[in-house]
Amino acid sequence: MEQQAIKPYVIGLDLGGTNSVFGIVDARGDIKATTAIKTGGHATAESYVNACIEALQPIIEQVGGLDKIKAMGIGAPNGNYYKGTIEFAPNLPWAHDCIVPLAQMFSERLGGIPVGLTNDANAAAVGEMVYGAARGMKDFIVITLGTGVGSGIVANGQLLYGHDGFAGELGHVTMVRGAEGRPCGCGRTGCLEAYCSATGVARTARELLEKTTRPSLLRDMKPEDITSLDVSIAAEKGDELALEIYNFTGKMLGEACADFAAFSSPEAFIFFGGMTKAGELIMKPIREAYDAHVMKPFRGKAQFLVSGLDGASAAVLGASAIGWEIK
Amino acid sequence: MEQQAIKPYVIGLDLGGTNSVFGIVDARGDIKATTAIKTGGHATAESYVNACIEALQPIIEQVGGLDKIKAMGIGAPNGNYYKGTIEFAPNLPWAHDCIVPLAQMFSERLGGIPVGLTNDANAAAVGEMVYGAARGMKDFIVITLGTGVGSGIVANGQLLYGHDGFAGELGHVTMVRGAEGRPCGCGRTGCLEAYCSATGVARTARELLEKTTRPSLLRDMKPEDITSLDVSIAAEKGDELALEIYNFTGKMLGEACADFAAFSSPEAFIFFGGMTKAGELIMKPIREAYDAHVMKPFRGKAQFLVSGLDGASAAVLGASAIGWEIK
Repeated sequence: MEQQAIKPYVIGLDLGGTNSVFGIVDARGDIKATTAIKTGGHATAESYVNACIEALQPIIEQVGGLDKIKAMGIGAPNGNYYKGTIEFAPNLPWAHDCIVPLAQMFSERLGGIPVGLTNDANAAAVGEMVYGAARGMKDFIVITLGTGVGSGIVANGQLLYGHDGFAGELGHVTMVRGAEGRPCGCGRTGCLEAYCSATGVARTARELLEKTTRPSLLRDMKPEDITSLDVSIAAEKGDELALEIYNFTGKMLGEACADFAAFSSPEAFIFFGGMTKAGELIMKPIREAYDAHVMKPFRGKAQFLVSGLDGASAAVLGASAIGWEIK
Repeated sequence: MEQQAIKPYVIGLDLGGTNSVFGIVDARGDIKATTAIKTGGHATAESYVNACIEALQPIIEQVGGLDKIKAMGIGAPNGNYYKGTIEFAPNLPWAHDCIVPLAQMFSERLGGIPVGLTNDANAAAVGEMVYGAARGMKDFIVITLGTGVGSGIVANGQLLYGHDGFAGELGHVTMVRGAEGRPCGCGRTGCLEAYCSATGVARTARELLEKTTRPSLLRDMKPEDITSLDVSIAAEKGDELALEIYNFTGKMLGEACADFAAFSSPEAFIFFGGMTKAGELIMKPIREAYDAHVMKPFRGKAQFLVSGLDGASAAVLGASAIGWEIK
């Protein structure tokens, strides 16, 4: 307790494909200070870390200096918990074809404090377990729908890390085999992420607009400018093509969850990220496809939940929880 | 220790789609007595349990009577560890559309001894962990290739049971989506089991014989009589069509393992059951398809092993280990 009183804070970093969000968090989970930078636009990991440290400096001062910081936790795509590295992360220009020892790099720049790192979706799962929709659950899967599709799997009350710290890459199970599979950022084809990420949804929109002549609010835009947010706005207005895009996306997610049930039979699937703001527009087709495809012993058992936490904070809190746990 | 000296044995039951094999096992894993019956040919679970008890009686007497038996462990398809039930097991005529409280039924017929039950493949995984190829491993997946395709998943050193005792049904992930998927015994289509079980392999043989006019030793048989054993015999003789059947089957398994890696990133995949006797004929296409399909961070890491144990004994020993563990 005295140790904590001396160093009462941890830094949490939610390292997303688009933004890197920092929070300085106390033991109760209160975020005392926060800042953010863009993740992209850095050619090297060194340049990215430099930008992070520059952004962190003022908020570290704000809480009383580096002496008040016990540790740092990072949630990052393709994060390896055992090694503290990011490995071959398809959506990070400075880590898509190499292994970056990010935990060590931050530790060296932050006076040697311990730095823990995991999959960004694992961090989200820790957040859900401590503060969110998974409180009290021992078996659940968090699926993050963002720039990519990630996952954090909790089984027997523990995060699944696998033998190499790399378990829980459910965005990269193959949903469409063979030549018709869409190319994925990971270099393969047909991955769940190629269909259900934000960019996947935008691509589905462009494909549907091209394939049909049906009217849609999305036709008012240049096809290459359409984002998943535009699809969501159109869907909320009742645009039929946009609703069909959600149905297609939800069906793919529900069929994938049916396979995941055969793996770890979770009590709940918890969806996290921008697309969940569409609520029933996306959750209904997920549930329906799951019920239609899941094996009989699993039918009707799993809950389908939307994260109860604010997206950015949940990931930062999850990352910070890794900071508290690290030795 | 004195308790164990008084009741030095457990009964293990490996309940397969074809045979039910019993062993009476001591604390060291020595099988003291063994017997077997056919699993099918019983209209009801009662009739099946009656036949089991009749077969067990003489071997129980052989080791000194029921007083010497501490517990019983059962490995069974669709076995539910938490409830001691078999639920909707597609390959068991007396349990394919209902829930059978098998642990309780055996306990009542065996003087009230504790009876534990799990997935037959989970039992095989326990066997591999205690006596076999997975000694010392904390993250591995056992895939059983028999009448069906089953799996036992160990993560963080623990068997994965899921929230309902039902995790690890990897034979029922969907490998072929949509209308071309083969019907599966579970009532759905396109499952891994529909292609890679013994009956799946025989079906692949019939399909290939019908689709082509290529010569094959398998043409000497009536198509409906071909079994996976015939395919294996022909393959060993170098029959090209039989080799193609193994390539097709192995490719399907390797692609499935690539998805499983994205889930739990195991140190090893351990294959168990009759088909593994084909050795490299099946293992080589599995490894090749895995390497071609797995996501980059997992490539070249997992071992592909054949069970080191004799098929029947491993499952019986695994089942018996569940008997030792039960309270």
